[in-house]
Amino acid sequence: MNIELVTIGTELLLGFTVDTNGAEIARALGVVGVRIVRRTSVPDDGGAIRDAVTAALARTGAVLTTGGLGPTRDDISKKVLADLYDAPLEFDETIWASLLDRFRRLNRAPVASNRSQAEVPRGATVLPNRWGTAPGLWLEGAPGLVIMLPGVPVEMRMLLEHEVVPRLLERAAGAGVIRSRTVRTTAVPESTLAERLGDIDDRIAPLSLAYLPGLDGVDLRVTAWNLVPEDADARLAAAAAALRERAGAHAYAEGDTTLAEVVLAEARRRQLTIAAAESCTGGLFGARLTDVPGSSDVFLGGVVTYADAAKSELAGVAPALIAEHGAVSEPVARAMAVGVAQRLGADLAVGITGIAGPSGGSAEKPVGTVWLAVYDRGETVARRVQLFNTRAEIRARAVQTTLFRLWQRIIGGA
Amino acid sequence: MNIELVTIGTELLLGFTVDTNGAEIARALGVVGVRIVRRTSVPDDGGAIRDAVTAALARTGAVLTTGGLGPTRDDISKKVLADLYDAPLEFDETIWASLLDRFRRLNRAPVASNRSQAEVPRGATVLPNRWGTAPGLWLEGAPGLVIMLPGVPVEMRMLLEHEVVPRLLERAAGAGVIRSRTVRTTAVPESTLAERLGDIDDRIAPLSLAYLPGLDGVDLRVTAWNLVPEDADARLAAAAAALRERAGAHAYAEGDTTLAEVVLAEARRRQLTIAAAESCTGGLFGARLTDVPGSSDVFLGGVVTYADAAKSELAGVAPALIAEHGAVSEPVARAMAVGVAQRLGADLAVGITGIAGPSGGSAEKPVGTVWLAVYDRGETVARRVQLFNTRAEIRARAVQTTLFRLWQRIIGGA
Repeated sequence: MNIELVTIGTELLLGFTVDTNGAEIARALGVVGVRIVRRTSVPDDGGAIRDAVTAALARTGAVLTTGGLGPTRDDISKKVLADLYDAPLEFDETIWASLLDRFRRLNRAPVASNRSQAEVPRGATVLPNRWGTAPGLWLEGAPGLVIMLPGVPVEMRMLLEHEVVPRLLERAAGAGVIRSRTVRTTAVPESTLAERLGDIDDRIAPLSLAYLPGLDGVDLRVTAWNLVPEDADARLAAAAAALRERAGAHAYAEGDTTLAEVVLAEARRRQLTIAAAESCTGGLFGARLTDVPGSSDVFLGGVVTYADAAKSELAGVAPALIAEHGAVSEPVARAMAVGVAQRLGADLAVGITGIAGPSGGSAEKPVGTVWLAVYDRGETVARRVQLFNTRAEIRARAVQTTLFRLWQRIIGGA
Repeated sequence: MNIELVTIGTELLLGFTVDTNGAEIARALGVVGVRIVRRTSVPDDGGAIRDAVTAALARTGAVLTTGGLGPTRDDISKKVLADLYDAPLEFDETIWASLLDRFRRLNRAPVASNRSQAEVPRGATVLPNRWGTAPGLWLEGAPGLVIMLPGVPVEMRMLLEHEVVPRLLERAAGAGVIRSRTVRTTAVPESTLAERLGDIDDRIAPLSLAYLPGLDGVDLRVTAWNLVPEDADARLAAAAAALRERAGAHAYAEGDTTLAEVVLAEARRRQLTIAAAESCTGGLFGARLTDVPGSSDVFLGGVVTYADAAKSELAGVAPALIAEHGAVSEPVARAMAVGVAQRLGADLAVGITGIAGPSGGSAEKPVGTVWLAVYDRGETVARRVQLFNTRAEIRARAVQTTLFRLWQRIIGGA
């Protein structure tokens, strides 16, 4: 099945917002064999919205829109679509009740403009939005199929997953699908990884392979195009296995699984607890681990020792050690890991100290110098890494590299 | 001047690539008063390209395309445009010579398909590409104006800056510009904010206002369209002042400035230091503050007290207090803030304890219940907030709300 995407919002045309919804929708629909054949972005202007949706329906017969469903006065797409389907807007008591309920839970009072959010074109199917105030709408009739979703990314994503994809799956049963599988690697540069993978493209054909470098490492995405589901899945499984084998220790997971999740799972399996002492990452390591629901049985907590005095007070680092070697040094990283492990009685602990920049570097310790230590039941290993680019990148990579070293330690690889 | 953007490339519709070109082009053109009024993405398909460009020219008379200029067989947009302008493709010796020169420098041999990159529609102006192999093209004639740029981001950017913008400036001499200004608000829902702003749209006309809700709050972007630069700036300044006045305490900054930056600046001005004790946010509060370069003179550090024992060991919270009231409670939030302030000798400190979910909630304390305390030189205030949606959202909003309370406390608003 083919569909066109119409994204609505003046701000999308101004260039101050990068539209990530489009890519996300394309991926989610691709998985169920629905292909986006054209994409149009129009401003919050009734004429432009009507024109774009009408032309798309004439070409393709199916349209997904995002945006224009909020309570503020620049949101007008619902009116335009009601007009196009010749279906007057009607007040929906069920939506209104759930809106009121939501407001009660938030301890807020609805305002007049919220009432318009409970209006739906007659005959439209309401896609309930438990993540925000504007429900999605599914309109089917003479003009074709129009699916309307809010533009707020989290609401769009949730409605797509819970309401749209299941309905599309029902319609598309039996056709060929577009499916992908992703093997995640870290702590290896893209070019080195490509060398290790060698002639993998030939081996996995007709599947295609994409390298997707990011802050967490390089994701390897293999895609099957328009195959019957069983064939696609079998080929993807074989390709993923081949990728993991060639990437070796650097392949840590598949799909959306994060290295933090892998670390927590491996520690949990061995009944080990983790603590952290962070300086340059300022809490980011703990934040990454505690992003994972249920992390509390493994991660005990940690200290953010940004000031030197905090390193001594909270992690028991001797002031003389800092005076002698500097805050960014192997002895201090080690002392931080050991100190926090002892304070919290943790089996494992990390110590991270570095220069995140943009200032504070020297010839000997340039910006991006990070010492990271991993304590493991009485033994501590430390290593210096040199990271690059922005402060945010240096911090994110320091966390990811520490997670990688901790993981290798847990599974016995380091 | 109005223009439409047509981006060409099957990969853009698959969703594995987020198209950042569009936003970049909109910003670059906006500065010289050229407004993108519609954006269309089509696959590498001659019919779709022709159809999209023809419709755009009929509507707007001016089109900028990206993509479809490379040497591979799926790149066909040049042929389509030559056909549309009734201008046969002709081999251009100058382009070919510079291509050969480039290959020599890269120590590579051109392949047969590279010859097609030296072909240009008769009468087109060549926009030389020193950053890649495909030159841009500028076609003007009966159908209107078409500017063709390569899709590779760095080549697109360089051609835009060095070839396109100067030519557009020449055409538009004396005409208006598009400029924006953003007022950032937090801790107020979009609909409540809209009510407070009331008839602001009328007051700021002809400027337009967009509500941009996100995890940090609602950004208010006001835009001046096609005014002379001085007039645009004066009106934007007045509009921003009006927005800030009506949004009241909820308006914390303009542009890209984060609330963490505001908090650090206000604390620094008063020579106050900050510490943090975090439970459900797991280090995210510290991470947000230390995202800001130079935060070390204000932020001393903190403790991540994920396990109950860590709350006692690191923040000095009496175990009896946790046993009596539970870890997510006002007394524990207060004790965390006071405890970390005393350990680190900080003037200000926050204590954050809550249920980030998805599990762990109860009828009395549902998922999203967060107690946050702000300690300020001997005095502590605490409040309970109820947050919603995903774990990531609850954590991010808990941090933002805490920053807001801390900021209000620092500037004397709470």
